[in-house]
Amino acid sequence: MKKILLIATGGTIASVQTEHGMMPMLDGEGLVERVPELSSICDISIMQLAQLDSTNIQPENWIAMARAIADCYKDYDGFVLTHGTDTMSYTAAAMHHMLVNLSKPIVITGSQLSLVEDDSDAPLNLITAFKAAANGTAGVYLAFNGRLMQGNATKKLYTENFDGFDSINVPDVARLENGELVWSCAPEAGGESGDLMLLDSLETRVVMIEITPGLTEDIFRLLADGGYRGIIIKAYGAGGIPGNESLNNLLPGIDYAIEKGVKVVAATQCTYDGVHMDRYEVGMTALKHGVVSAGMATTEDALISLMLELANK
Amino acid sequence: MKKILLIATGGTIASVQTEHGMMPMLDGEGLVERVPELSSICDISIMQLAQLDSTNIQPENWIAMARAIADCYKDYDGFVLTHGTDTMSYTAAAMHHMLVNLSKPIVITGSQLSLVEDDSDAPLNLITAFKAAANGTAGVYLAFNGRLMQGNATKKLYTENFDGFDSINVPDVARLENGELVWSCAPEAGGESGDLMLLDSLETRVVMIEITPGLTEDIFRLLADGGYRGIIIKAYGAGGIPGNESLNNLLPGIDYAIEKGVKVVAATQCTYDGVHMDRYEVGMTALKHGVVSAGMATTEDALISLMLELANK
Repeated sequence: MKKILLIATGGTIASVQTEHGMMPMLDGEGLVERVPELSSICDISIMQLAQLDSTNIQPENWIAMARAIADCYKDYDGFVLTHGTDTMSYTAAAMHHMLVNLSKPIVITGSQLSLVEDDSDAPLNLITAFKAAANGTAGVYLAFNGRLMQGNATKKLYTENFDGFDSINVPDVARLENGELVWSCAPEAGGESGDLMLLDSLETRVVMIEITPGLTEDIFRLLADGGYRGIIIKAYGAGGIPGNESLNNLLPGIDYAIEKGVKVVAATQCTYDGVHMDRYEVGMTALKHGVVSAGMATTEDALISLMLELANK
Repeated sequence: MKKILLIATGGTIASVQTEHGMMPMLDGEGLVERVPELSSICDISIMQLAQLDSTNIQPENWIAMARAIADCYKDYDGFVLTHGTDTMSYTAAAMHHMLVNLSKPIVITGSQLSLVEDDSDAPLNLITAFKAAANGTAGVYLAFNGRLMQGNATKKLYTENFDGFDSINVPDVARLENGELVWSCAPEAGGESGDLMLLDSLETRVVMIEITPGLTEDIFRLLADGGYRGIIIKAYGAGGIPGNESLNNLLPGIDYAIEKGVKVVAATQCTYDGVHMDRYEVGMTALKHGVVSAGMATTEDALISLMLELANK
């Protein structure tokens, strides 16, 4: 029987009603006890790493999670991380990029309703996660509503719906059907080669700003002068940033930031299809000014890549 | 036959390939000529208001559009506005809020491929828009991929897919089936009462910022000191903003901005289901600090509401 480590960090899945609203109070033991089927899937050990509403998850918590996995990597066949849904896509992208040369599965999950609520989605999500972790296919995944998704390609789309996450610009990796995981892509043979490597240095002076009509170029001067080292622009559509033809040309402010050493990355404020900055004049001009395209990456994924690149250059 | 005014503003629908990428070059006459079916739907007049990639659309352009509609409101039975897709949801929300007591339809449309490209989605979108404008049902709508949606409730979700827009948290108003518009909700009888009223004053010192792990409270001090009068926070999930329990408590910076007179509105970075800030401790605390909930509004809609409220208080 495979040995899986559950790393519990709180979240709605572990929440109970209090006078201050829903707060994470159930620990990892409490989660596993309430879903007896889990013990038939694998041999579960538990580490209680945090007890947080995932709104409060910070890069420091990612470092703790990645280090916890690296520290006991040899002792387990796979890892399940329970987590609040609010920042789960960020954390999944962080684990994907911080843990290099993975040869084991790391599966992140949570739920829209607490495990203690009637008709909660938590049992299904835990079962999916532990089945994926016990399957042995290397990589970082997010398990939700019977779907297994590539960790760095997910986004929370619904604040309430049980099918709350989607895999962005790549298909689901697997789905739970009749209690068994059915893989869409053939699992990789043995994962990456080489020893596990941990990247645990992240630049946090990074900010994500959405372009909206009326925004003026001084925003980029403010952010550069305020000490930000990276800016993710959520541009329009395929990567449009108001330029020369606009009443509010943003390029002088972007030039100023780039000259001060700030890295400026353009992603899209649309959910799907990524940026294609070579298509329209408004995108091509931004590229010429030194803006970097996030391509098909989600904003969550682009943020982690930027944090790691700035800290490790 | 109903008299409809086409107000053309540019966009991909009017674009042709140039050495600088796709640029809007076709005028309103060129659009109508290329879709002969339109002349059988209604009697079309044309106003060429702008020739812009909609990345460059600014509040000044909204004022020009709304004034153009108000100025010749009595001369037409309805209006079609052709527009680039990148900021089309913003413009639709702007028309919805700037034109009060509407008794005629205003339908905004565009396309993912230029009208001159093979298999373009432009003809279907123009036909849907003119059918809706000629139908007479009062309100602001967005027409796309055979769907008619409530103007202030749409979002561009796909940078490429023909079904590029969705109606957020409300159902589609109508769909084109076998060439006829089928309405999901019974059309309102006669629209609003009273004369058309134009709200054409908008505060543009407004910025939209996405909460991400690692963001620190000084961002709100920077924005308040930088002269911003309104901030839309794209919070996590149901409205979570990192607070007291977080390593990076954002509330002191938010307090500072609010004390300086900045209005701070929380919307969600998820696409669907809106914010429910009374559910979790992290949302309830933000409300106590004076953050205002955007409820079920899209970020585009919340932005326009904030711009109008700040300019008209």
